[in-house]
Amino acid sequence: MSETPPRGFPEIEFVTRLGAAQTQMADQGLSGLLLMTEAEIRYFTGFHTLFWQSPTRPWFLFVPVSGKPIAVIPEIGAALMRSTWIEDIRTWSAPAPEDDGISLLRDLLTPLSQIGGTIGMLKGPETTLRMPLGDYERLRAALPGLQIADATGLIRRLRMVKSPAEIDKLAHICAIGSRSFDALPRLAHAGLPFDDLFRAFRREALSQGADDVPYLVGGAAQGGYVDVISPPTPTPLQDGDIVMLDTGATWDGYFCDFDRNYAIGRADDPSRRAYDVLWRATQAGLETARPGATCRDLFHAMSKVISEMDDSGGDVGRLGHGLGMQLTEWPSHAAFDDTILLENMVLTLEPSLSYGDGRIMVHEENIVIRADGPELLSTRAAPELPVI
Amino acid sequence: MSETPPRGFPEIEFVTRLGAAQTQMADQGLSGLLLMTEAEIRYFTGFHTLFWQSPTRPWFLFVPVSGKPIAVIPEIGAALMRSTWIEDIRTWSAPAPEDDGISLLRDLLTPLSQIGGTIGMLKGPETTLRMPLGDYERLRAALPGLQIADATGLIRRLRMVKSPAEIDKLAHICAIGSRSFDALPRLAHAGLPFDDLFRAFRREALSQGADDVPYLVGGAAQGGYVDVISPPTPTPLQDGDIVMLDTGATWDGYFCDFDRNYAIGRADDPSRRAYDVLWRATQAGLETARPGATCRDLFHAMSKVISEMDDSGGDVGRLGHGLGMQLTEWPSHAAFDDTILLENMVLTLEPSLSYGDGRIMVHEENIVIRADGPELLSTRAAPELPVI
Repeated sequence: MSETPPRGFPEIEFVTRLGAAQTQMADQGLSGLLLMTEAEIRYFTGFHTLFWQSPTRPWFLFVPVSGKPIAVIPEIGAALMRSTWIEDIRTWSAPAPEDDGISLLRDLLTPLSQIGGTIGMLKGPETTLRMPLGDYERLRAALPGLQIADATGLIRRLRMVKSPAEIDKLAHICAIGSRSFDALPRLAHAGLPFDDLFRAFRREALSQGADDVPYLVGGAAQGGYVDVISPPTPTPLQDGDIVMLDTGATWDGYFCDFDRNYAIGRADDPSRRAYDVLWRATQAGLETARPGATCRDLFHAMSKVISEMDDSGGDVGRLGHGLGMQLTEWPSHAAFDDTILLENMVLTLEPSLSYGDGRIMVHEENIVIRADGPELLSTRAAPELPVI
Repeated sequence: MSETPPRGFPEIEFVTRLGAAQTQMADQGLSGLLLMTEAEIRYFTGFHTLFWQSPTRPWFLFVPVSGKPIAVIPEIGAALMRSTWIEDIRTWSAPAPEDDGISLLRDLLTPLSQIGGTIGMLKGPETTLRMPLGDYERLRAALPGLQIADATGLIRRLRMVKSPAEIDKLAHICAIGSRSFDALPRLAHAGLPFDDLFRAFRREALSQGADDVPYLVGGAAQGGYVDVISPPTPTPLQDGDIVMLDTGATWDGYFCDFDRNYAIGRADDPSRRAYDVLWRATQAGLETARPGATCRDLFHAMSKVISEMDDSGGDVGRLGHGLGMQLTEWPSHAAFDDTILLENMVLTLEPSLSYGDGRIMVHEENIVIRADGPELLSTRAAPELPVI
């Protein structure tokens, strides 16, 4: 068992992230970044809390092209933000529906508006506006000279390549996830309600050292499952079921994201074959995943094997993705994504196929791209469909 | 122990919700609602998945002023959406950064744009735009005649009052939360790393029947904690610590949200007094919480007691809130909120105060408003600070 890495990051990690962002901002003529989403604010500050689950309060971070980030946040978060490396913390007593941080942002950004400056915000794929749309429109109207550029590419480039400390956390939670799946054959048995298996798996992952298991979905049905994003039903497992659990467990705010398939009692031939095809598709992905290859290359390498059994292109839309502070991050292993793989990107390989009468099967492994090829962070799935 | 309620809802629940929405929409001249957030889509469809944790794909639901809702969603969700009462399901192979549902939405809404129709979206407090801002701007540009009104009030009125089936789910998870806290005195002891207590509490809640414990925060420190939204540190508990855990556990997609305070080994006088003040503030809230009173009344009733020890107004911004599919929902027990309490609203009472050298203490109970007053869903906290 690997040693538990330290929690949090030394300040140099944030200094480095900020410097890399500011270099790009200067190149692009941006005076700053206005950020409001959990992963981005944590990336630049280390501010880490589950309180984001409350939709009540907006949170803002302004990252200037020079100097340290400025937090504009609800007073309830001030104590925690003061424990980070951030010094300039501006707060209001939130919630305040009439002015939830908007006048603080207006005051901060008015000098830039007066000179016609440009700031970056996240406007592109896989981003959301985590503030009320009405407040955003009011803020825009109050800053008529301010230009807003899309900073999705900038942030994406930064976050896609992980630091050694981030990779340590990801390796740690992937190892916890692997040990949890190792225990699954003794947790699952015919007659067990499927939702009880979910509870048992969550308890196992916590015992193995996970902080939390925010994501756990799966399927179980005779001869193959039909859906890969459902919560579990209380239906008891039975002989002939193909069972899949897909987990995103976390440690210190970093996710693993992989799944495992099992047959209860006996495995039907189509499911055994689907499993074999996906295992070999993953192998083709592993052989392709090295610096200089593209996500498109990964997609085609896996697709070629998948097409032995399914040439429909599937309904999942991609065959894997980035992994880090979020369960899924850029890039996507898809025909549209020509992102070049770089050393220290952490990715999932997630081939899937449809078979039989509307059945679907998914496989997933987690890897980090090293100079000489992929390093598995998850323990490789068994080459044949395990029968419990 | 109460009986476990059925999962999901009968179709009549969704018919009723839709009818109530459409009545309001007709009154306000809205041709439809365009929704994209998890709670709202689940509210009208029953579509329930943890897959929302992946930020990659947007999801849309159009609720017309007459007729059934129309889902515009990624193909990966089609099988699950087909298991709901929704019939018109339009999908695309997502992710597709060039067109993530936008042309499907444009086609759906163009007839309304051509006649200068108005639709509602969530633009107000406690809402977010869960789609890329750039895509939203492109959609607006493609529908020049379409008017967008803020439907926050409409949705808020619907969701604030819970149905009997929703209250059954909320009562069930609150009972699970209460039993989990009952077990805490045998889980916590001096010497236990605080993050291990979190793991033990999560395991206990799962054993008691929770589906998940998405929210768990707390504090532990000598003579009182200083922050109420932090993740736990590995620091061992020690005699003289005041410990607080605040949990949002879920069952079938509904949350409990309450906390409990304990002293390890011995309790200092200021913390005992703070506890007593907050217990009596909650009592004052319970005495006020009946149909016809306002959230402002609740705020003032609790504030009056709190001011015995702290008249600063605190930094939490409110003294409780709504509860349901989200950890926190409208309304807020705050001076600004004149929402009138109605039968079957489910609320938290959450008085807090600052004391000593930057210490904070919070108390919380969960209630449902009945015709003759509040019914506690959480088991009332002990009247004196429990010493473990």
